[in-house]
Amino acid sequence: MLIGRVVGSVVATQKDEKLTNRKFLLVQVHNPQNEPTSQYVVAVDSVGAGPEDMVMYATGSSARQTELTDGRPCDAVVMAVVDSWDLGGENIYEKWA
Amino acid sequence: MLIGRVVGSVVATQKDEKLTNRKFLLVQVHNPQNEPTSQYVVAVDSVGAGPEDMVMYATGSSARQTELTDGRPCDAVVMAVVDSWDLGGENIYEKWA
Amino acid sequence: MLIGRVVGSVVATQKDEKLTNRKFLLVQVHNPQNEPTSQYVVAVDSVGAGPEDMVMYATGSSARQTELTDGRPCDAVVMAVVDSWDLGGENIYEKWA
Amino acid sequence: MLIGRVVGSVVATQKDEKLTNRKFLLVQVHNPQNEPTSQYVVAVDSVGAGPEDMVMYATGSSARQTELTDGRPCDAVVMAVVDSWDLGGENIYEKWA
Amino acid sequence: MLIGRVVGSVVATQKDEKLTNRKFLLVQVHNPQNEPTSQYVVAVDSVGAGPEDMVMYATGSSARQTELTDGRPCDAVVMAVVDSWDLGGENIYEKWA
Repeated sequence: MLIGRVVGSVVATQKDEKLTNRKFLLVQVHNPQNEPTSQYVVAVDSVGAGPEDMVMYATGSSARQTELTDGRPCDAVVMAVVDSWDLGGENIYEKWA
Repeated sequence: MLIGRVVGSVVATQKDEKLTNRKFLLVQVHNPQNEPTSQYVVAVDSVGAGPEDMVMYATGSSARQTELTDGRPCDAVVMAVVDSWDLGGENIYEKWA
Repeated sequence: MLIGRVVGSVVATQKDEKLTNRKFLLVQVHNPQNEPTSQYVVAVDSVGAGPEDMVMYATGSSARQTELTDGRPCDAVVMAVVDSWDLGGENIYEKWA
Repeated sequence: MLIGRVVGSVVATQKDEKLTNRKFLLVQVHNPQNEPTSQYVVAVDSVGAGPEDMVMYATGSSARQTELTDGRPCDAVVMAVVDSWDLGGENIYEKWA
Repeated sequence: MLIGRVVGSVVATQKDEKLTNRKFLLVQVHNPQNEPTSQYVVAVDSVGAGPEDMVMYATGSSARQTELTDGRPCDAVVMAVVDSWDLGGENIYEKWA
């Protein structure tokens, strides 16, 4: 998994029917120091993540191991909202700070 | 998934027989600011995307979760035509604008 | 899938027995403008591609969806010989030109 | 697999229910010379790795081949704690040195 | 697959039990001109490769299609020892030269 920030969302009406009612989040990948990188992904939301949330996403076949993505043409899923992380013993991010 | 633009198509007669009648789209990847990157992919069309359309594509085994790609040697599929997306609260792309 | 050119082949006698009689092609990846990139792959041939042919290859589990690669430790397969492609309305490559 | 060092951990309460009680390790990838690279991954711990440990992790569907990750939306798993490795006949890392 | 050279091996006692008695090779990726690149992988040996051998490895779920890796948390396998390859009609590498 990688850590990222929800920076937007994508709307698509004309899509595979198995993706109806799925929410597509635009996620900017962050590095362990919590700086944005140039990498991004569009991931289906499986946990009710909101704008600006720091999240984790999984890719590949692992992205289909949630109820909302099982058997669907989806290669990335937001499977967790991040509360906090530490790096080298130092707290880097704290959601409720 | 990543966002890209349909910039062309590829014709191949001599191919695995399970790929007969599949349309191969040449898709240039765009970044969240809607600028083209140097990354591209050839993806099977599963939604009737047209030239110049902004689309999303899925890769890996997830690319085989559509009726047109199931069980076939295809590692990328266009599974949605993008209507619009926003980034940081700002509308970046609007198909019908 | 990506587009590439068959630039060579690899011989390996000491290999997993399920790969006996498979042909390993050395494929240099090309960009949509038909310029070679620094990326390459060794892919099993499933369509009878020849030296210098422009081909498409699929990777990952999708590379095992052909008769010749099913159930084998092979993560890339040439699944099509390219006849032609266009980019932005312009013909970029034509096999029979 | 790649080699990395456990440099932190990630806490996430709001997550896919199949990930309850899984520990998410922040792993910085190292090169064969044991220098940190800019690449990182968040991986589920399946072997009881501790802070500062050098570990190996597996990605993709292979990350789900442990008891703790089977059938879960997890695309990276720490599946070994590294004792030592050599490079070109020279010992590069020794855990108990 | 990619071509690489066996430059070392990794020892790990504390690991997923399904990986007991598997040998982990440190493989430096080479380009088609047989020059080392900065990319490496740790791969399970399935063919009895030795130090300095040029090998091919497969990744992802394809890495689990050998007897030694089936159902195990392993995302890279050495599935062939390379005898030779050519590039543009020129012999680049010959094991027994």
